[in-house]
Amino acid sequence: MRIAVDAMGGDFAPAAIVEGAVRAARERVAVTLVGVRADIDRELRTHGHLTGLDLEVLDADEVVAMSESSSTVLRRKRRASVRVAAEAVALGRAAAMFSAGHTGATVLAAHATFGMLRGAERPALAATIPTVSGVAVLLDAGANVECRPAHLVHFAVMGTVFAKVALQIASPRVGLLSIGVEESKGNDLTRDAHQMLKATNLHFIGNVEARDVFTGHADVIVCDGFTGNVALKISEGIVDALEALLRDELARTLATRCGAALSRGAFRRFRERVDYSEYGGAPLLGVAGLCLVGHGGSSPRAVRNAIILAARYVEQQMLDGLQRELAAALPVAG
Amino acid sequence: MRIAVDAMGGDFAPAAIVEGAVRAARERVAVTLVGVRADIDRELRTHGHLTGLDLEVLDADEVVAMSESSSTVLRRKRRASVRVAAEAVALGRAAAMFSAGHTGATVLAAHATFGMLRGAERPALAATIPTVSGVAVLLDAGANVECRPAHLVHFAVMGTVFAKVALQIASPRVGLLSIGVEESKGNDLTRDAHQMLKATNLHFIGNVEARDVFTGHADVIVCDGFTGNVALKISEGIVDALEALLRDELARTLATRCGAALSRGAFRRFRERVDYSEYGGAPLLGVAGLCLVGHGGSSPRAVRNAIILAARYVEQQMLDGLQRELAAALPVAG
Repeated sequence: MRIAVDAMGGDFAPAAIVEGAVRAARERVAVTLVGVRADIDRELRTHGHLTGLDLEVLDADEVVAMSESSSTVLRRKRRASVRVAAEAVALGRAAAMFSAGHTGATVLAAHATFGMLRGAERPALAATIPTVSGVAVLLDAGANVECRPAHLVHFAVMGTVFAKVALQIASPRVGLLSIGVEESKGNDLTRDAHQMLKATNLHFIGNVEARDVFTGHADVIVCDGFTGNVALKISEGIVDALEALLRDELARTLATRCGAALSRGAFRRFRERVDYSEYGGAPLLGVAGLCLVGHGGSSPRAVRNAIILAARYVEQQMLDGLQRELAAALPVAG
Repeated sequence: MRIAVDAMGGDFAPAAIVEGAVRAARERVAVTLVGVRADIDRELRTHGHLTGLDLEVLDADEVVAMSESSSTVLRRKRRASVRVAAEAVALGRAAAMFSAGHTGATVLAAHATFGMLRGAERPALAATIPTVSGVAVLLDAGANVECRPAHLVHFAVMGTVFAKVALQIASPRVGLLSIGVEESKGNDLTRDAHQMLKATNLHFIGNVEARDVFTGHADVIVCDGFTGNVALKISEGIVDALEALLRDELARTLATRCGAALSRGAFRRFRERVDYSEYGGAPLLGVAGLCLVGHGGSSPRAVRNAIILAARYVEQQMLDGLQRELAAALPVAG
C-alpha cells in the first residue's frame, strides 16, 4: 500500500514533510511525495541511506499559498500538489493521501476528486484528542466554518461510525459541544441541533461543556468547524503556555531544579500523551477516498505519524467500514 | 464602599458564596449578602468571629434555577436575588454587585436595572486571562451567544478602554479570534468584523489564532460569546486534565515521586498563575453599573477574590473611566 503525501503543504514544507516521509518509508510504508520535483529531490539528498526505501516523486508544479481562497485554488491551479495527490488516490496509484497544507484547499480537492460516500452530505475533519480516560473524536475540526443544525447531526453519525470502526468503541457516547449542559443553553445552532440529536437513535448524552472535552465523558463531540478549530488550537496553545510557566517555576530554587531533573522522564511521557503531533493527522470523513489533514505546523514526527496512521486506516479498511455503517445509520438518523 | 453579593447564585451556593463573603469582609470590604435570609443566616452561623465584620443581609426570596430561561426569570421573578442585588447598586446601597449564578439572568438583570453607558450598545463579559507575558482580556466571554460583526467592533472598543483603565496598558493591541491569521480565514462573522476593525483607529493587529491567546501577542481578544465561553472553559478543562495526567506520570517511579515532592512549591505557584478563580469574576462591560460575573463553580476563594476585585474597580473609578474613554473612542470607531 502506498500513501500520497503533499510535499509542498505546511509551514515547514517541503523539509519537514520530506523528512517525515523518509521516516515513514524506513518503517516500510511506501510513499509518493507530490510536489515540485527539484525541491523534493534537494530535500531527499539531505537524508542518507535512501536505497531500498519505497519513495517515489510525483511532479506537481503549482504551490498553494496559505492566503489563497480555496475555491480559487481549485479553479485555477490544476497542477497544485494537493490536487495531484488526490488524483493519485482516485487513479489507484495510492491508497490514501496526506496534506499539512491549506485545509480549505485540501477539503475542496478531496471532495471534488473523490466525491462523497453514499449517504454522506458534507465532509468533516475528525480530530482524535487525548482524554483522561483514553481518546475521543471531535468533529468538525475545521472543514465547515458555517453549519446548520442538520450538519451537526450528520457529523454525529459520521463520528459515531468512525469511533466504532477506527477506535473500536461499541456504542460511542455523542456529546454536543455547548456553553451549558441544559438543553436551553447555547446558540441557535446548538439548541436546534440538540432537539434533532435527541430524535436520532445515536447514543446522545446531551450537551457537553468545553471543560469536559478532555474528561472522557463523551466519545464523539460534535460542533461547527469554527468552534472545533478554536477548541483544538486553544488546547495546543495552553499546553505550550503551561509548559513554559512550569519550566519557569521549576527553575526557581535548587530543590525544584532537582525535582525537575528527577521528573524529566515523567514530563517527556506527559508531553507525548498530550502532544497533538502524536496523532499526526485528522481524517476527512464523508469523502469517498482516504484523506488525512495535518496541522500547518506539522513536524517531521507528526508527518511520519500521519503517514503511518493513514496506512493503518487502509489496513483497517476504514473507508469500507464507514460506508457500511453510514448506510445502516443514516436512514434512522434522518 | 459596599459590595452586593448574590448569595443564591452558583453551583455551591449559598455555602461557598457566604464563606467567600466572610473572607472578603475580614479584609475590610463591606458586603451585603442578598438572598433567602434563613439560608444565609444558617451559613453565617458556621463561621466563627463575625463580630466587627461589616456583613449585611438583604432579603430576596426567589431563587433562579440554572435551567430557567433568562427572560422568564426577569419577567416573573421580581424578588430574585440577582435582581435585588442589582437594585441595591442602582439605589446606591452598594457600589458594585457580584453573582456566580445564571449568567444570562445576571446580564439581563444588570442591563434592565442599570441601563447602558452612553455610547455602549451591548453588554459584554470581559474575562482576564493569564498569558506567558502577563494578562490579556478576552471578550465576549458569554453574554452574547449570537453576534453581528458590528458587535465585535464594539467589544474591541470596550475591551481597549477596559485594558487602559483597569490593566494600565497604554495602547492595547486588539486581536480578532479566528481560525487563521490571514484576513480571508474565518467564518462570515469574523471576515466582516476584520474589515470593520481595520477601519477603526484601534490598535488592531489582525486575526489571532486560538493557540496564540495565551502567548500575549494581543492584549484584547474579541470574539462572539459562544466562542469565548468555549475557549475559556476548554482552557480550564485542559488545565485540570493536564494536572491529572502529570500526577499519574509523577507517581510512577521513586525518582519521579521524589522529584514531585521537591517540586511541590513550584506546582502550587504554577496552579495559582493559571487558576481562573484567582481572577474571581469578569466585569460586565457596557452597563451603567459595576457588575462582576463569577464562574458557576466558584470556590470560596474565587468569591473572595471577586469581591476584592469589585472593590478595587470601585476605587479605580473604573466605570467613570470606561464612560470617559468610551465617549472619546466611539465616534471614531463608528
